[in-house]
Amino acid sequence: MPDTNALYDRLCEYVRKTALLTSTSALLEWDQQTKLPAAAGEYRSAQLTFLAGEIHRRSTAAELGDMIGELSRSDLAADPMSITGCVIARLEKKFHRTSKLPVRLVEELTRACSSGQRVWVEARQEDDFAKFRPVLETIIELKKEQAGAIGFEDCAYDALLDEFEPGAKTNEVADVLERLRVDLVPLVEAIKASAIKPPVEILHRSFPVADQEAFGRYASEKIGFDYDRGRLDVTHHPFCTEIGPDDCRITTRYDETFFSSSFFGTLHEAGHGIYEQGLDSTHYGLPAGQYCSLGIHESQSRLWENLVGRSKSFWKHFYPEARQRFASLANVPLEDFYAAINHVAPSLIRVEADEATYNLHIIIRFQLEQALINGELAVADLPEAWNAKYQDSLGILPPSDSDGVLQDVHWSAGLIGYFPTYSLGNLYASQFYDAAEARLGNLEAMFAKGDFAPLKQWLNQHIHAQGQRLTSTQLGEKVAGEPLSHDRLIKHLKEKLTPIYQL
Amino acid sequence: MPDTNALYDRLCEYVRKTALLTSTSALLEWDQQTKLPAAAGEYRSAQLTFLAGEIHRRSTAAELGDMIGELSRSDLAADPMSITGCVIARLEKKFHRTSKLPVRLVEELTRACSSGQRVWVEARQEDDFAKFRPVLETIIELKKEQAGAIGFEDCAYDALLDEFEPGAKTNEVADVLERLRVDLVPLVEAIKASAIKPPVEILHRSFPVADQEAFGRYASEKIGFDYDRGRLDVTHHPFCTEIGPDDCRITTRYDETFFSSSFFGTLHEAGHGIYEQGLDSTHYGLPAGQYCSLGIHESQSRLWENLVGRSKSFWKHFYPEARQRFASLANVPLEDFYAAINHVAPSLIRVEADEATYNLHIIIRFQLEQALINGELAVADLPEAWNAKYQDSLGILPPSDSDGVLQDVHWSAGLIGYFPTYSLGNLYASQFYDAAEARLGNLEAMFAKGDFAPLKQWLNQHIHAQGQRLTSTQLGEKVAGEPLSHDRLIKHLKEKLTPIYQL
Repeated sequence: MPDTNALYDRLCEYVRKTALLTSTSALLEWDQQTKLPAAAGEYRSAQLTFLAGEIHRRSTAAELGDMIGELSRSDLAADPMSITGCVIARLEKKFHRTSKLPVRLVEELTRACSSGQRVWVEARQEDDFAKFRPVLETIIELKKEQAGAIGFEDCAYDALLDEFEPGAKTNEVADVLERLRVDLVPLVEAIKASAIKPPVEILHRSFPVADQEAFGRYASEKIGFDYDRGRLDVTHHPFCTEIGPDDCRITTRYDETFFSSSFFGTLHEAGHGIYEQGLDSTHYGLPAGQYCSLGIHESQSRLWENLVGRSKSFWKHFYPEARQRFASLANVPLEDFYAAINHVAPSLIRVEADEATYNLHIIIRFQLEQALINGELAVADLPEAWNAKYQDSLGILPPSDSDGVLQDVHWSAGLIGYFPTYSLGNLYASQFYDAAEARLGNLEAMFAKGDFAPLKQWLNQHIHAQGQRLTSTQLGEKVAGEPLSHDRLIKHLKEKLTPIYQL
Repeated sequence: MPDTNALYDRLCEYVRKTALLTSTSALLEWDQQTKLPAAAGEYRSAQLTFLAGEIHRRSTAAELGDMIGELSRSDLAADPMSITGCVIARLEKKFHRTSKLPVRLVEELTRACSSGQRVWVEARQEDDFAKFRPVLETIIELKKEQAGAIGFEDCAYDALLDEFEPGAKTNEVADVLERLRVDLVPLVEAIKASAIKPPVEILHRSFPVADQEAFGRYASEKIGFDYDRGRLDVTHHPFCTEIGPDDCRITTRYDETFFSSSFFGTLHEAGHGIYEQGLDSTHYGLPAGQYCSLGIHESQSRLWENLVGRSKSFWKHFYPEARQRFASLANVPLEDFYAAINHVAPSLIRVEADEATYNLHIIIRFQLEQALINGELAVADLPEAWNAKYQDSLGILPPSDSDGVLQDVHWSAGLIGYFPTYSLGNLYASQFYDAAEARLGNLEAMFAKGDFAPLKQWLNQHIHAQGQRLTSTQLGEKVAGEPLSHDRLIKHLKEKLTPIYQL
């Protein structure tokens, strides 16, 4: 036993050292997206590539495999819910997954995705899918090969999904998202048919950037993002990243004539940040101190952005402050503002979509990427399939591939299996919210008083501090007290949208 | 020969990879000084320590030593002025210097300096030299040991000076700085005795930070700092750092009621930055693409800050713009402004000292640290020796150790041998300026028209692009056409200060 404990300590030390490199790499990337001088891109790529090589070398080293192998047969691995059990089991899974990939495949994927993103930018600008097609074909073939190398039981997509949502199964995700779709489509139709049109114009007035930043910072701090352990900066494509146990950085972008983009974007990223800041920092770099899955991560951003941030009571608290800060809102009644920020309408672009139709965008991508990986859809036929699905689900036909099949970076970057985690996050968010309310009492009454601490602390305890001890399916079921389901999201949407649109 | 060339390429590739880590470490440090969240310091130290270890491992690896050893005996090393000759010779010197240090000594120094800086901060705050004394004693002993391990001919201080000013000799530096001191003291006395008192109050009016930043950015860009390849940020202790061949970052700090601090600080750092941006980026990471010495580096910052930035003609060009931007200057005549920014008066704090007395601060430190290393002065007697020298050279007695012997971070960080490079920079700056003028014609006439490109390009060609092909002594002599001397600095100071103070 003493030897096993010493070996476990050695394993942790090894993995923590790798985390020093990973977090340093995260700083290089954060800086690239927020601060990097215009001419410095090429060398930054070289720095990132070198570190990626070192991280990969450490992550696949025989030394690591040997330690994991020995410990996985020890008593320390017996209880998967213990810290040691969690650490050993998750590291073992990751090591095997990484080690199964031939170096040649890893290099080819890196090359294809690097070139893919470059070509995608051009193809999107020129509205030329044909230009993107060859590299996407290569990426799809390599992702199929990757799935094969990793191995799977039911379908190849399972192996890819597992990278982002460990343990999730394609058919289960497909079932719940299909049920969601079936309920969403008539809801969106009803809203389209409603005579009520929220005054969205009020959100497109003048909102000075400095005031937007100050207000976003104020609100994100109020809900619980800790600026002693984080930052807020400006970028093109907002994200949240973690550069150390006490260094979580969120980003946003400002549009001087649109309120929602930065404000709800900041709440969204702050939700991600609150998750990162709620992880157990004593296990930083180890699975016991890492986020569970992308779906759970997204549940936290969506919960704060939509369920809290677009609630009436949230604005009962914040709206007086907003009106003081923004002259454009001085004469706008709270009811109008509330209706406008919850406006629902089918649109072309996923990242600009509202809370309800957003999921339809995701489901389309999820279905299409499954078909690509399972060989049921050729890349050449992708634009046609895309447009058909947009017509079918959202009732709109993209006027160009730039605003259609070419709008997202994910596929060009080899991120296949990533999209469904966005909608899983929406489902989990509603379930977690209801579970929190069942335990804590009327949350909206707290929000109206500016009291967000009880909800945050509940999430800290039941979700954040759990790390990777459970898979997302297990964690979701434990916290929500029920299996993954679309019911609560639909209930939330209906409860909010019915009065607004008088459905 | 082909094998030698292949080996040389392999050496360069190896060293360039180390530079990827060094530049990444520079980003971690830049971020620490400019952006790091309050609570993230501890983990940042761990990241920096890990990278320092990796860099040290690579820099002392037998693989590197073998390549250098073989190449140093090859034809490629024959001509030290060739690129290959320069690269091999400088790498060989650095490798031997690094390899001579026992790992134990390196670790003890790292520990002592880390603790030294922490203790120094407290001791300075509490004005308690006794608190700092034990750790400084340890550091001095370790630096003596370091000098012994490296080896020296004349004196131990030579071995330490060589780290910052390769090839420079203590006795030569001491000679030229003593001649400088002998001429400076009566000049400062004469100024103290002058009835003229420049209206320094005008620099202590209201200068809004945003306007200071915009004006500093404008002027630094105008003299040649390229913001496509660099940045300007805010920090406590301004510095310039280089994070890649096209990524040079300068920093400054703003005082809303003092014009000079940020403006001349920005010009100073931009001078460092123009040097970095003028290095041959095709040799990035290799000695042929690295700065020559700290003295030469400082010559570039001082040249732009003082010889250009405090000249009458510089302000003939910039003052109308300054008056437009700053209401505080609207009614101040150029003559008054010019006199105020060139005000000379003995003061306690080095970093706030004027162009003339600054060197007296340096000479005091240079003399004291030599005495500490040569065993002629005990750390216990340092405060008394410090105060005696301030009384003697500047005619002022520090009222406390916080404003006296405890004011600088350098000794607590083990940076012994660093101080004289500041004054060497001032000497070189005057010599280079005169050499440039001899070649290019009346520089002030160009500045008055806002034309700084000829001077910058001359510096680019004759100093920056030379990398480390020559030592600073050799480069100085070649560029200035004469040996290192204090004459031109004294001449510059007298030419400027005589009319201002009617000496």
